Amino acid sequence: MIRGTTTIIAHLGDPIAPVKSPMIYNPYFESVGIDAAVVPMGVRAADYPEVLKGIFSLTNIRGALITMPHKVTTVGLLDDYSVAVRIARSCNAVRRRADGTLYGDLFDGAGFVRGLQRNGFEPGGARCLVVGTGGVGSAIAAALAAADVAELALADRNATALAALADRLRAQYARLTVTTGSNDPSGRDLVVNATPLGMNPDDALPFDVTRLHPRTFVGEVVMKEEITPLLRAARERGCRTQVGTEMLFEQIPLYLEFFGFGTVSSDELRAVAMLA
Amino acid sequence: MIRGTTTIIAHLGDPIAPVKSPMIYNPYFESVGIDAAVVPMGVRAADYPEVLKGIFSLTNIRGALITMPHKVTTVGLLDDYSVAVRIARSCNAVRRRADGTLYGDLFDGAGFVRGLQRNGFEPGGARCLVVGTGGVGSAIAAALAAADVAELALADRNATALAALADRLRAQYARLTVTTGSNDPSGRDLVVNATPLGMNPDDALPFDVTRLHPRTFVGEVVMKEEITPLLRAARERGCRTQVGTEMLFEQIPLYLEFFGFGTVSSDELRAVAMLA
Repeated sequence: MIRGTTTIIAHLGDPIAPVKSPMIYNPYFESVGIDAAVVPMGVRAADYPEVLKGIFSLTNIRGALITMPHKVTTVGLLDDYSVAVRIARSCNAVRRRADGTLYGDLFDGAGFVRGLQRNGFEPGGARCLVVGTGGVGSAIAAALAAADVAELALADRNATALAALADRLRAQYARLTVTTGSNDPSGRDLVVNATPLGMNPDDALPFDVTRLHPRTFVGEVVMKEEITPLLRAARERGCRTQVGTEMLFEQIPLYLEFFGFGTVSSDELRAVAMLA
Repeated sequence: MIRGTTTIIAHLGDPIAPVKSPMIYNPYFESVGIDAAVVPMGVRAADYPEVLKGIFSLTNIRGALITMPHKVTTVGLLDDYSVAVRIARSCNAVRRRADGTLYGDLFDGAGFVRGLQRNGFEPGGARCLVVGTGGVGSAIAAALAAADVAELALADRNATALAALADRLRAQYARLTVTTGSNDPSGRDLVVNATPLGMNPDDALPFDVTRLHPRTFVGEVVMKEEITPLLRAARERGCRTQVGTEMLFEQIPLYLEFFGFGTVSSDELRAVAMLA
């Protein structure tokens, strides 16, 4: 329940109607008695820089969640940001620090990695393939690198962006082997679909599943349905898998901590979320 | 419950913590299945023009409630406004019209007059005294004039502002008798306290209650407590009275209609409000 005293977390995006965050955060805040609320605000790209500034001048703002199409633009509007933001060139959480400056972070990738660990996959030393290195793929690549994987193979149709991402990863993580170009899943411990393939019923699979080894762990970012065609095919081959919503739920404790709301487990969040 | 699809009514003020609107509007929206929410946003005076513009660029904004200290500033930021706004030089509700322009109105006074009618006092032809002609007093004076009272006596310590308000009232309502200076309640059908006197326990009464006739109706805007010292004194003299929250509840149907949410009675609002 919103009151005059309620602290606001703005969720900024366009279109804003699809966002699910209010139904996850707000029931949690209510359940533990935190007087805060996530408020979705639709912001057109042309208005975004001015609105972001205005929102952060509010006396009861704690921070902002950033979604499409503002995740890249935001980086240029910040005073400071995390390594993940620097590598992925994308930001999905902003808070104002005590000195008034805006600080940004990016938790998609960290949420994905927390999901892996929750599902029994320890990324340290792993040979990984990330297919699709747009916003979420870049974030996952950055988080896997931070989690000490041994090899990171990256595939994307945009060769220029791909090469630049690989360079930023190599510059930050000297011991990491980064390769680009191949989306062959064979010989990988972890393969991640970070493309939108699976959103539409007639989408192709993002890579050749017949080359998946049963010991390979397959992660998915598409959450249009729980078991996407890729996950179904991977399971049929005996692979362990991670569904798209895992990344969503696992990153929320990171946002809550980032915004100063303390520590919570994703299980507590799942128990009260009203996504049905 | 807020969702991605929720339409926002911003409540803009500073300080924002004291506002009660979310606990009145939001339970009502919930009770009738309207996917909208009043969201309090604290805005400092220096930031206000930019923030108002930014808020109205949101794709999911329906309008804004305006409270202290922005009610006067707002008038200069609008494209068009009502007669009540023009007379009172104050605005507490803004919506964007279909052509993109911002239109403002002011419902404090109209809510007060609806309260009078609800309490059996018909203002048409009445001889009225309004003590205090700041924001809310000006609004009440404008609404009484619009409700066809015969005489409007206005009292305020700020003689310049008082004279200007009287001039604006006379210009708009040629048949209305407007006098200024005296706060003597004798010979009035209606006397209104629109000063803040009554907010603090050691406040003086706003006028000489010993000169109140038992047939005079006494209205109050202070809502610090239900029965203020003025209302207690008036009741002891046999006067009918109107409590401060009456104006609050009676103006909300006007805002809801202004923002395009249809018609509702104040009784329906009272039944679901969570002000306790």
